[in-house]
Amino acid sequence: MSHLQEIKRFETCTPALLAAFETIVGQEHVLTAAGQASDDYARYGRDHTEDLHFTPDVVLRPANADEVSRIMRLCHENRLPVTPRGAGTGLSGGALPAHGGVVLSTERLNRIIEIDERNLQATVEPGVVNEAFQNAVKEVGLFYPPDPASKGSCFLGGNLAHSSGGPKAVKYGTTRDYVLNLEVVLPTGEIIWTAANTLKNSTGYNLTQLMVGSEGTLGIITKVVFRLLPYPQQNILMLVPFRQEEQAAEAVSAVFRAGIIPSGMEFMEREAIVWSSNYLNIPLTLPEDISAHLLIELDGQDLEQLYKEAEQVYAVLEHYDVGEILLADTAAQKDELWKIRRNIGNAVRYNSVYKEEDTVVPRAALPTLLKGVKELGRQYGFKSVCYGHAGDGNLHVNIIRGELTDEQWNHGLQEPIRQLFQLCVKLGGTISGEHGIGMVQRQYIGIALPEINLALMRGIKQVFDPHGIMNPDKIF
Amino acid sequence: MSHLQEIKRFETCTPALLAAFETIVGQEHVLTAAGQASDDYARYGRDHTEDLHFTPDVVLRPANADEVSRIMRLCHENRLPVTPRGAGTGLSGGALPAHGGVVLSTERLNRIIEIDERNLQATVEPGVVNEAFQNAVKEVGLFYPPDPASKGSCFLGGNLAHSSGGPKAVKYGTTRDYVLNLEVVLPTGEIIWTAANTLKNSTGYNLTQLMVGSEGTLGIITKVVFRLLPYPQQNILMLVPFRQEEQAAEAVSAVFRAGIIPSGMEFMEREAIVWSSNYLNIPLTLPEDISAHLLIELDGQDLEQLYKEAEQVYAVLEHYDVGEILLADTAAQKDELWKIRRNIGNAVRYNSVYKEEDTVVPRAALPTLLKGVKELGRQYGFKSVCYGHAGDGNLHVNIIRGELTDEQWNHGLQEPIRQLFQLCVKLGGTISGEHGIGMVQRQYIGIALPEINLALMRGIKQVFDPHGIMNPDKIF
Repeated sequence: MSHLQEIKRFETCTPALLAAFETIVGQEHVLTAAGQASDDYARYGRDHTEDLHFTPDVVLRPANADEVSRIMRLCHENRLPVTPRGAGTGLSGGALPAHGGVVLSTERLNRIIEIDERNLQATVEPGVVNEAFQNAVKEVGLFYPPDPASKGSCFLGGNLAHSSGGPKAVKYGTTRDYVLNLEVVLPTGEIIWTAANTLKNSTGYNLTQLMVGSEGTLGIITKVVFRLLPYPQQNILMLVPFRQEEQAAEAVSAVFRAGIIPSGMEFMEREAIVWSSNYLNIPLTLPEDISAHLLIELDGQDLEQLYKEAEQVYAVLEHYDVGEILLADTAAQKDELWKIRRNIGNAVRYNSVYKEEDTVVPRAALPTLLKGVKELGRQYGFKSVCYGHAGDGNLHVNIIRGELTDEQWNHGLQEPIRQLFQLCVKLGGTISGEHGIGMVQRQYIGIALPEINLALMRGIKQVFDPHGIMNPDKIF
Repeated sequence: MSHLQEIKRFETCTPALLAAFETIVGQEHVLTAAGQASDDYARYGRDHTEDLHFTPDVVLRPANADEVSRIMRLCHENRLPVTPRGAGTGLSGGALPAHGGVVLSTERLNRIIEIDERNLQATVEPGVVNEAFQNAVKEVGLFYPPDPASKGSCFLGGNLAHSSGGPKAVKYGTTRDYVLNLEVVLPTGEIIWTAANTLKNSTGYNLTQLMVGSEGTLGIITKVVFRLLPYPQQNILMLVPFRQEEQAAEAVSAVFRAGIIPSGMEFMEREAIVWSSNYLNIPLTLPEDISAHLLIELDGQDLEQLYKEAEQVYAVLEHYDVGEILLADTAAQKDELWKIRRNIGNAVRYNSVYKEEDTVVPRAALPTLLKGVKELGRQYGFKSVCYGHAGDGNLHVNIIRGELTDEQWNHGLQEPIRQLFQLCVKLGGTISGEHGIGMVQRQYIGIALPEINLALMRGIKQVFDPHGIMNPDKIF
C-alpha cells in the first residue's frame, strides 16, 4: 500500500478559501504571512526541533470543535494539507508545516471544562497547558501525573499526540494511561467520541489508544476526559552521585528488583547537570571523580513509610561506588534539583544546535545503550550529552553540533544515528519513547518497524483520512 | 462501509483442506465431528455464554506461530472462517464458531517462555492459564495483577481478547495495562510484533492496544510480553455489610475521595453472596436487614501502613448505615471470602440459565445504575442478581431465567436490556467493561457506538482482514 502516500497531491490555500476560513473562525483568527508581523507569523512554522522552519499558507485559530469540523470539511474537499499545532514544544518536528497549507492551532481550545471530584475525572480542551491542568486538579487534592520537562508551556494536546511521559512516568505511566475518552474531529470533518468515561471498556476497537500517539495524522483532538488519582501528599528526593556512569545505569534495575517503585528515577551525565546549573546560575560544586547522577524520588501519602523505602534504596546503593548522597531537606531544595533536571534540554539548546534522539530500551539494557552511544561518538567524532528517564529505559541522547561542518551535521550523522537506533532495537527497544517520530525520525522508522507494520498503519491512516491531508508525511 | 460485511461469502472445509491441515499440525491435532467422541468435540462449540452452541467444521490445535501462520494462509486463500479459542470461559460468545469453519484452539501454545527478573517482564504464549502465570511470577517475587473470576481456568489469550479485569483492576488496571508487545499472526498469515519490549513507546500507531480487546477479529496473538510489578507482600481484607444497597454503591466513591485506592472494591447483592456460599457449602449467617456487601482489599509492602489506611476506610464508612464489619484475620478466612466472591458466577449458572450484562459507568453513577436495573426488573418481570467491580463502576447484572418462557427469554428481554444499556450510556458509561461484545451483545453495539465509529472499526478490520475470515460477525 506504500504507493498510496506517493500519489497524494495537495493544493494551496486560495483567496476563496481564506474568505471561507474567515467566516468560520473570524478574521482575527486567520493569520497569513502578508497580514502579520513576521516574527509573530514565523513562530507557527517552528517548534523545538533542531533549527527547522517552514512557512504555512495560513494559520487558523478555531475556538471549538464545531469550527474545527467546518475547517476540516473545507480542507478535505479542497485537498489542503492541515498540520495541527499545540504549544510548539515538540522535539521531532510533528507540528512543522512541511507541506505549507493550514496550521491549525489549538491555542484557543484552552478550557478546563470540568473537574469531577466524585469520579476522579476531568474534561479539558487540548490547548490547556500541562502545568496549569496539574495545578487546577491539585487544588482539589487530585493528581494528574504526566509531567514532561516542558510542562510549564506544553499543551495537553501535544502530550496526547506523542503520549508524553516525563519523570513520573516510571511509577505512573505516560499520557496514554490517563485518557478515558476523546472527542476527535476526523479529517473528513465528522466529530466522534472514541469511547466512554469509564475506567474499563471492552466495547469495540480501542480508537482512544489509536489516536494517542498518532501525532496528529488521524484527526484533531478537541476534548479529553482524563482519569485522575488522589494527590500523593509526601515525597522524598535524593541526588546520588556515581563515579562510573554505567554503574548509575545498572543501579536503576537493582532498585526495582528490591521491590521499590520510585516516582522518579532520572539519569544525568556529569555534563548535563553542569550545563544546566550553569545555565540557571545555580552554583554547584561537583567532585571531579563524579561522572553521573541518579535523581530518585519516592512519593506517597505517608512520610514515615517513605523513609522506610528510602532506607531500602540506600541499602541497594551500598553495592555501588557512589559519592555522598544528597537528601533534599526543603521544598526549595527539591524545586532546585528538579529545576536543574528539567532545564537540561534548554541548557543544551542554549549552548549549541543539537539533535535529540529519544532512545528507549528495557531498563536493564541501559548500561549497554549508554556504552554504545559513547562508542559511536568516538567513532564518528561527535559529542553527546545524555540524560533521561532511567527507570523507563528512556535515554535522551543529545548530539551536540559544536564545531561540526554543515556536511557532517546534515549528512554525516545519519549513519551513527542509524546504528544507534539499530542498537536500541537489538536490545529490545525502539527509536522513540515519548517524543514521537514526527518529521525528523521518519527516515529511521524502518529500523523499528518492518514494512508489514507500516502497511497496516498506512491502511489505518487511509481509513481515517482518505485524501491524506492530515499532517502528511509524518511518522511514516 | 457497512455493506462490506454483508457481501462476504465463506466456504466450508473440504477433504483437501483437512489433509493440508493434517500436514501442518499433525493428524492428532485436527479434530472433526466424525473422528471424535461427541462430548470431546462439542466442547469446542460452547463457552460460558448462556446455553449457546455451534458446530465447527474442524478444530485445529497448532503448536507454534509458524503453524498458525500456515493455517491462516490456507484459510485466507480459501475464504474459510476462523474462530480463535482460548479456554472457552468467555461470557459474550466471542469464541463461538457461529459460521462453522475452523476453530483454532490455542491450548498447545502454553509455554511461559521467559520471566525476565531484571526488567520485570515476562514472555508467554496465549494458552497459559492466568493463575498459572500469576503463580510462576509470584515465585520470584513478581506480580501480574489481572485476575478475572475464572483465573483458575481462563487463558491469557482470552484475557487479551477482551482486556479482562477482575477485582484488582481498580488499583492495577486491566490486562491491557500490562501488555508491552505482541506477536500476532495476521489473517493473511503474516507474523508481526506490534511494538517493542519497552515501558514507553512513541513509535507509530499503537497496534498493541488495537489488538487488545479486538476479540480475535484482527489476528491471532501467539506471544505476549507483559510488564510485571514487585509482589505486594501484605494485604488487609474486610467485608462490609450495608442495610441499603444503594448506600453500598455510594460508599465506593467516598473511599476514593478520601485518598485511598483499594486493591479490591467489590459489590455483592445479598442474593449473590447467599447463592455463592450455598453453592460452596460455606456456612454464612447474614442478619436479615443486610441487603448488600462491599468486599474491600488494601495491599502494599507494609502492614502497619495498611492498618493506617484501613482506619481511614473505617472513618469513611461511619457515615453509612453499615452492620458489623468483618476484618479477615487469617489467610484461610481471606481465601474463603474471595472464594465466595469468585464463585458467584458459577453459583448463578448452577441455579439457572442466565444472561450476564457487563455494565460499566463512572463509579459515582453506580447507585443510579443499580436502581435502574431493579426498576427494569419490576417493569419487565425479571429477577436479577447483581455484583461486580464497584471501584471501576463495573456491575455484572445477571438476569435469571427462572420461570421465564422461551418467548420471554429469547425475545421479551431485548427491550429491557436495550433500556439498561441506554441508561449506561446516558450515565457516561458503556455496554461492556471486561467481557466484550462478542456475539450476544452485538445487536446492542449501536447503543454505545454511533455509525461513524463502527465504520472506522470496519475499515480497520478490512485493512487487517481483507476477506473478513477472522472471527466474523463478532463485535459489529
